[in-house]
Amino acid sequence: MSDSLSAARDLIRVIPDYPLPGIRFQDLTPLLSDGSAFSAVVHALKPQTERFDVIAGIEARGFIFAAALAHSLSLGFIPIRKKGKLPFLTHAESYGLEYGQDVIQIHQDALSPGSRVLLIDDVLATGGTAVAGIRLLQRAGGHVVGFSSVLEITGLSGREVITAAYPKISTHSLFKV
Amino acid sequence: MSDSLSAARDLIRVIPDYPLPGIRFQDLTPLLSDGSAFSAVVHALKPQTERFDVIAGIEARGFIFAAALAHSLSLGFIPIRKKGKLPFLTHAESYGLEYGQDVIQIHQDALSPGSRVLLIDDVLATGGTAVAGIRLLQRAGGHVVGFSSVLEITGLSGREVITAAYPKISTHSLFKV
Repeated sequence: MSDSLSAARDLIRVIPDYPLPGIRFQDLTPLLSDGSAFSAVVHALKPQTERFDVIAGIEARGFIFAAALAHSLSLGFIPIRKKGKLPFLTHAESYGLEYGQDVIQIHQDALSPGSRVLLIDDVLATGGTAVAGIRLLQRAGGHVVGFSSVLEITGLSGREVITAAYPKISTHSLFKV
Repeated sequence: MSDSLSAARDLIRVIPDYPLPGIRFQDLTPLLSDGSAFSAVVHALKPQTERFDVIAGIEARGFIFAAALAHSLSLGFIPIRKKGKLPFLTHAESYGLEYGQDVIQIHQDALSPGSRVLLIDDVLATGGTAVAGIRLLQRAGGHVVGFSSVLEITGLSGREVITAAYPKISTHSLFKV
């Protein structure tokens, strides 16, 4: 890992018992507020080998990294949002969270048919959000080539969940905890 | 206005009666999904004259533009979030929306004291969110130098609301409707 990525890693702080007792929340805000760390992380989120036409991000923290990378590559950005936030016709998928249950949506016309999509979220935990996001992108006509996250919580086996459902999608994370 | 900005402007679509009857919702998602348009808009959000150290964005659509601009300038990004979404100690401000009422928060330690901050949101409507965001940034020790938005709904007088409260803060928008 490069020095700048190691320095970025050190800026992630753990908030105990948030949002529920027993959860050790990984807070990326100190990393975001440091220009060098944010820059290094966004740069490193770009997969080395896969080619893609557009980048999708999952509301809300996923927007931060996905939009920054999309802009730096002059690519378009596709928002995947919580239920009821997108104004046009949508597809919806529900999924289980590390704590709770939620629904995410995509605009039915979000993608050009056959677009190669990189999906980005901040954290990979159980993989529930990632799988729901991939399903939405596929339903909207996209070809998902990769999923990238800043931080992977390996004990929750999200990578295995994604790979079991979508063996051809390359899963990539910068840091592991 | 440059050709690329004019083309971006043409990608904003109006969704009638969303989220409530009588509201003409300005949907920026077609603009975001076009790499050239997104690129032109983020580039144009940078103020010509003000100097700033860090960029803050308001959840959720503000994150997209603020994070992209922050990354392109190698600056840090500060998230201003809806109530209950930030895990550490927060300041909170409530405000009236074009439709409804809401609370936004910032981490108390989000900024280095005296940081010069550019605040970005997608749309400037009544100015309620912008003023609440400025107040939060000031309470966190920041010096807000400007507010930039992609689209200003001039009939709702948000610009006048910001200028009345903060005459020294420069307000900038790319498109007006």
